[in-house]
Amino acid sequence: MNGEPRIWGVGVGPGDPELLTLKALKLIQAADVLAYPAPEEGESFARQIVKGHLPGGQREIAIRMPLGDGAFPKAEIYDRAAETLLAEAKAGRRVVVLCEGDPFFYGSFSYLHARLAGRAAVSVVPGISSLTACAAVAGGALALGNQVLAVIPGPLPEAEIAARLRQGGAAVIVKVGRHLAKIRRVVRAAGLEAQAHYVEHATLDSQRVLPLAKVGEENAPYFSMILVRGVT
Amino acid sequence: MNGEPRIWGVGVGPGDPELLTLKALKLIQAADVLAYPAPEEGESFARQIVKGHLPGGQREIAIRMPLGDGAFPKAEIYDRAAETLLAEAKAGRRVVVLCEGDPFFYGSFSYLHARLAGRAAVSVVPGISSLTACAAVAGGALALGNQVLAVIPGPLPEAEIAARLRQGGAAVIVKVGRHLAKIRRVVRAAGLEAQAHYVEHATLDSQRVLPLAKVGEENAPYFSMILVRGVT
Repeated sequence: MNGEPRIWGVGVGPGDPELLTLKALKLIQAADVLAYPAPEEGESFARQIVKGHLPGGQREIAIRMPLGDGAFPKAEIYDRAAETLLAEAKAGRRVVVLCEGDPFFYGSFSYLHARLAGRAAVSVVPGISSLTACAAVAGGALALGNQVLAVIPGPLPEAEIAARLRQGGAAVIVKVGRHLAKIRRVVRAAGLEAQAHYVEHATLDSQRVLPLAKVGEENAPYFSMILVRGVT
Repeated sequence: MNGEPRIWGVGVGPGDPELLTLKALKLIQAADVLAYPAPEEGESFARQIVKGHLPGGQREIAIRMPLGDGAFPKAEIYDRAAETLLAEAKAGRRVVVLCEGDPFFYGSFSYLHARLAGRAAVSVVPGISSLTACAAVAGGALALGNQVLAVIPGPLPEAEIAARLRQGGAAVIVKVGRHLAKIRRVVRAAGLEAQAHYVEHATLDSQRVLPLAKVGEENAPYFSMILVRGVT
């Protein structure tokens, strides 16, 4: 590789390894260095998705990060990771950063991108986002025609979620996690519970899809969504 | 194939044939019948995306439809297409419907799905949506953290677009087409023009990405978007 150092941010989709794109597969298999987000301990979900496709022998860099929907972006961790990746790219190695879902749809890759842009040629390969994966497994349109679609993070205050739902259109509530009880209360108060579906671990073996009204009182996993459909 | 007739709605992504998923590729190559939306005359964009991947010898069904952002869904055309596809599936053939982008993100497949659900086993394979493809080529996050992301169709009345933008968060205006001048006016009035990017034909050779302020007065193609980023 000549000239400017290059780094790729590659979306690996929501979980099913078959939902990788042809472009992502090629870049991942040709990479010298694979980096990926990982929890403080244990396996990286992004790496798990692609592990059946890896040729072996690639250098791997786990970017370990505390999980949690309220977590402040850990600036020092991203600073350090960006320097490490940049050094690899400057040494002429092909650096690919694996991103769950899509890199730019609420993805932590954005924090790396902000640190790398202008210092390396950063290319992003879009991935299947949890948004469209959830709609596919729930079996209904996200939005149609001239309908507005609002993507609303579940950690937001109750009043703010309610205000967005009141505006009409379709809505998807992401990052449900421990906010399930609150979200259910808001959706119910807006008279939308009968049109709301809950999806957990879309496209994985552990996938669950059910009407919001039938979800129990337990907390939801971080990777769950509620689709409030304007389309029936 | 035994038992219930089966039909697949398969997202083929925004235009780059490499942005097909492994799953889509397998289903398309194994299909007996390929159906796809097409203009009244000329080539289907969805078919163009996959044509390099086709093994040949498959039966093809073009669902021809007048284009246009204000077009009322053509009920009779969808009715007839659904019956045709159902007859093929009942005859034991593997029927795959190609969908530009993602089938359930403002996709016309929803109109077929509504007619087929309950009469056949309909499976949907998500595709790379224009939403994440545009963010990838524009090089910036759609949304981050607890930011709301509003997807707003450009044909909506000026006051409604303005109201959505006033609520804050990130926004993406889709289906720009002949509404460019109006949208620019609304974005400018909201004080957001400096944060707005225009993307046309994302991931195709004809792709254009530029600040909204630098877009000329001409109309935009139907496949164009404006990203109003809350993230800088």
